[in-house]
Amino acid sequence: MIHFFEYNWQVRDEWFEWCKQLPNAELLKNRTGGAGSILYTLFHIIDVEYSWIRGIQDKEDVVLEFTNYNTIEKVKSLSNTFRIEIAEFIKENVDERKEKVVSVTWDEDKYTVDEILHHIIIHEIHHIGQLSVWARELKLKPVSANFIGRTFLPANLL
Amino acid sequence: MIHFFEYNWQVRDEWFEWCKQLPNAELLKNRTGGAGSILYTLFHIIDVEYSWIRGIQDKEDVVLEFTNYNTIEKVKSLSNTFRIEIAEFIKENVDERKEKVVSVTWDEDKYTVDEILHHIIIHEIHHIGQLSVWARELKLKPVSANFIGRTFLPANLL
Repeated sequence: MIHFFEYNWQVRDEWFEWCKQLPNAELLKNRTGGAGSILYTLFHIIDVEYSWIRGIQDKEDVVLEFTNYNTIEKVKSLSNTFRIEIAEFIKENVDERKEKVVSVTWDEDKYTVDEILHHIIIHEIHHIGQLSVWARELKLKPVSANFIGRTFLPANLL
Repeated sequence: MIHFFEYNWQVRDEWFEWCKQLPNAELLKNRTGGAGSILYTLFHIIDVEYSWIRGIQDKEDVVLEFTNYNTIEKVKSLSNTFRIEIAEFIKENVDERKEKVVSVTWDEDKYTVDEILHHIIIHEIHHIGQLSVWARELKLKPVSANFIGRTFLPANLL
């Protein structure tokens, strides 16, 4: 499971770099499908990941307003901040809790930790697929989605 | 790992159903980004999955020509045929082989079975994300990408 998180975080960082070639207005521009804009998609991925991880931890959800994170620098900084906390938690606490049932405020159903981890991982990969279409619509080469050929060093997981 | 395959196969089947609302010409129409067309994307997902699974099995690659699978019925039938074989293999043989190193004809690098399984899973989710943007461009609601809320019965894995 951990390798999917490492992959998602590495790809996410590559998209942050990719975004630097575009003016902020282009990153904020509303597009067809997905979460709406390139920057909002990245923000949304981070927000959803953090909310579910806090849900697993029985911690209260932190509601984030996109208006406070409307530049690539701010979104990247948010990602980095949460990642330290999430990586630490996943490395140390997840394996023995996989069957634990979790209840969250934003969903009336309950899910196991294992289901939630699958959901978080798939959620990010799916949205990144959407970014790749928008990239081509902008006549730009998207970040590679390949898993093979990547190197994950211990440092990738902080 | 098995739940990601179950998820991908269930979502893929839902996309096959979704495709039935469109004429074949629309499914074959070239689009921006991704693998090119809706139908080719689905064919490509199946082709890549099967090639890598055969690679893991040390079996020769089966080269498929898209011209032989250019309707949704043919692509769905291909998917069903391969799935029986793949599901059987994954259920029974994968766990103890994860660290085995695999060499394939279409890539000069070698990868472990575990890396290849990650790659297959991510490859499909990524391309399905692309289909979801094209669906919205066609003013159609895409298939849900959510993992939570799905039910995977033993029968899902054939």
